[in-house]
Amino acid sequence: MSSKPSIPKGTRDFSTEEMLKRDYIFETIKQVFRLYGYQPIETPSMENLTTLLGKYGDEGDKLLFRVLNSGDFLSSVEDNELLGREHIKLSSKICEKGLRYDLTVPFARYVVQHRDEITFPFKRYQIQPVWRADRPQKGRYREFFQCDIDVIGSDSLLNEYELIKVIDEVFERLKISTCIKINNRKVLSGIAGFIGEAERITDITVAIDKLDKIGIEAVNEELQGKGLSSEAISNLQPVLQLCGDNYAKLNKLSDLLSKSEIGMKGISELRTLLAHVDSSPLKCDLELDLTLARGLNYYTGAIIEVKSKDVNIGSICGGGRYDNLTGVFGMQGVSGVGISFGADRIYDVLNQLNLFSDIKVSSTEALLVNFGEKEANYALKILDLLHRLGVSAELFPDAVKLKKQMSYADSKKIPYIIIAGDDEIADNSITVKNMSSGEQKKIALNDIVSFVKDEIIRSK
Amino acid sequence: MSSKPSIPKGTRDFSTEEMLKRDYIFETIKQVFRLYGYQPIETPSMENLTTLLGKYGDEGDKLLFRVLNSGDFLSSVEDNELLGREHIKLSSKICEKGLRYDLTVPFARYVVQHRDEITFPFKRYQIQPVWRADRPQKGRYREFFQCDIDVIGSDSLLNEYELIKVIDEVFERLKISTCIKINNRKVLSGIAGFIGEAERITDITVAIDKLDKIGIEAVNEELQGKGLSSEAISNLQPVLQLCGDNYAKLNKLSDLLSKSEIGMKGISELRTLLAHVDSSPLKCDLELDLTLARGLNYYTGAIIEVKSKDVNIGSICGGGRYDNLTGVFGMQGVSGVGISFGADRIYDVLNQLNLFSDIKVSSTEALLVNFGEKEANYALKILDLLHRLGVSAELFPDAVKLKKQMSYADSKKIPYIIIAGDDEIADNSITVKNMSSGEQKKIALNDIVSFVKDEIIRSK
Repeated sequence: MSSKPSIPKGTRDFSTEEMLKRDYIFETIKQVFRLYGYQPIETPSMENLTTLLGKYGDEGDKLLFRVLNSGDFLSSVEDNELLGREHIKLSSKICEKGLRYDLTVPFARYVVQHRDEITFPFKRYQIQPVWRADRPQKGRYREFFQCDIDVIGSDSLLNEYELIKVIDEVFERLKISTCIKINNRKVLSGIAGFIGEAERITDITVAIDKLDKIGIEAVNEELQGKGLSSEAISNLQPVLQLCGDNYAKLNKLSDLLSKSEIGMKGISELRTLLAHVDSSPLKCDLELDLTLARGLNYYTGAIIEVKSKDVNIGSICGGGRYDNLTGVFGMQGVSGVGISFGADRIYDVLNQLNLFSDIKVSSTEALLVNFGEKEANYALKILDLLHRLGVSAELFPDAVKLKKQMSYADSKKIPYIIIAGDDEIADNSITVKNMSSGEQKKIALNDIVSFVKDEIIRSK
Repeated sequence: MSSKPSIPKGTRDFSTEEMLKRDYIFETIKQVFRLYGYQPIETPSMENLTTLLGKYGDEGDKLLFRVLNSGDFLSSVEDNELLGREHIKLSSKICEKGLRYDLTVPFARYVVQHRDEITFPFKRYQIQPVWRADRPQKGRYREFFQCDIDVIGSDSLLNEYELIKVIDEVFERLKISTCIKINNRKVLSGIAGFIGEAERITDITVAIDKLDKIGIEAVNEELQGKGLSSEAISNLQPVLQLCGDNYAKLNKLSDLLSKSEIGMKGISELRTLLAHVDSSPLKCDLELDLTLARGLNYYTGAIIEVKSKDVNIGSICGGGRYDNLTGVFGMQGVSGVGISFGADRIYDVLNQLNLFSDIKVSSTEALLVNFGEKEANYALKILDLLHRLGVSAELFPDAVKLKKQMSYADSKKIPYIIIAGDDEIADNSITVKNMSSGEQKKIALNDIVSFVKDEIIRSK
């Protein structure tokens, strides 16, 4: 093989610079998670397909990456099944495992499997990659990182409020202006009932979720195409056209849904959340958005989505309340609520807004120049000393031209160059060059410790 | 589905406690990597199978997890191929991607792909999971973490020496007593040549690699079984029985291999390495072990393996020099050397030796008790203040019995409980209970800042 190697489409390598920028995002998010008492767990990359299938809708099932069984994967498949070529059915016979699609379903599985070791309410955070066989495009990858927190085992709305605070704090620390959009699945159910189409809630929410993108005419057409009656569509119009501030919207909704028990329950939940927020104002905007539905079937209460106000890139964080997710794994009556930060989109936002400027690329503080065997042996003793003092330092491994060693230091942005040639060996010293000031000075071996403490460590 | 869910065999969930212990290992290793000037990169979990196949021997190829192509994966497979049921051949037609087997091959691929962006010598570290469809057993998992450093683009033996220093420093910080075993592939080639079986180097190294486990008789039998002549086996005996300290072994080897150019080159490399080590003694032991071969075909020079002296668990770190690895991806003449720390085995060693005792399990410093709506609203203001002061704190989300809230605090090992009931609300105070001393005191709202600074933050 001699053509340049490549990686699967939709996947990425991360260079050192990208790694440091990503670490900054992960560290910021983790610190806030910990500040609010969330604890880390991790789950395996592969889950049994029985765990994953049926949790994300038909579309989601198609986007799962399946892992071929080891050994003779065909041994339990009959000839006629092979020739039938039903690839979806066949894939379940030759693959038992899949790569996780998100962190929420594996978390629900974790909770059920480890229920006896967990103290509830269980507040966990989890930062790991997920995989989706989506069509790759700008800002959409087949392997990407999610940063999730969930509280499971408590249906208190204080949890929803806490998630809003966490979002507010994370984006304030990252200096990204955001708008948090909230909605409630119960309100959506109320609306579907109010227009006489309770059964059609999925079609209705899918359609109105597009209002932002395609406009009200197109939404109405889509609803008509789905077979909703003209009367239902006409009854829906006041909801689609709801305007004013959050309270104005809620008041109008209360009028419309006054006869819907579930709708009024959703409105009451939203009011409680807003009251908490009012008592301790957020740095970001909070907007009630009735068109917010999100694709996931498992939401039953609050629905949350966060958008950057300065970069048009879709949702950078989202989540909601799910009452039944552990139920599918055999553990009933446990409600959970959680959100997921999309590290990759947050990365793109910070990049576009130039908010990464302060990230330090090099970890190396000092490069010792290599002039040959004798000098290298002298330099190794200096290197030992620097390492003992906690200074990140390296000796260039080859005795090549000084120019090449300097350009290495340059490209790694190493701030100090240490030169130890015949002169320095003769009088037990080193010469240190500060790469930003250009200043160069000779330092006796006995003075290295104080030099390091006064200058290198202090400038870090 | 109502049976308890599970995860694929050979994979693991990590609880919070396990996560914190693992983080301690990763952080310790990372700090040493950075101290020596290594920079982080990451590569995707999935690589094209063309990148992975043929790099790990036939056994390795079998252990690769293959990812089924999305959509109709059978579309390019003929009926007769299906009925032929050659599962290995078929798997290559229905799977283009696989999960990475180690970090070295993806790193070589990365270097070739990004050669124009990289400054050589390139010192990178990489900490990510790898996957192998190995038979799961104690201490062997199908998903496990490797922590790798490699230097590529320099054939200086200073790199091998640096890796030895890194190993020494990592295990000193982790307080694990270790023995570093070293060998050199050139010496193994010299030995194979010396006994007149240069072509059989793989069979010979595979056999003598087992000396430790099965003893000299069994090794000789295995060699005989592989078809080695009695004369060759008899010539090999002095090598197998080599004893004494490192220099004694090298002197004896020099006599035996004096006519082998490659063998003498290997001996000279080992001498250089030992000379460096002598000038700055290690904390761990360093032992020349001629039976050390390791399975990987791509090693060409130094071979390194590390064992715990107190726990019998196999290799906890290993690596070596590879001269041709980027060659298979079309980039010739670039030599690399690297080592990989096995985080999972290191975890087991630390656990067995009880060296994890100081890991702090809770991140939460203070739990605010929830007595109901009014009290919770008062507590939320305290919570805001604590968060602004950087104190990790949480309000229990439900107004359940005090006992339940206390046992939650207990299981999360939260050191401070904050009580704010009617009395406290009436006189603008809180009651703080120190869970380790049992001491309880009332603090005015105005004094919270100084209390936090004097007591909570100081005790962290």
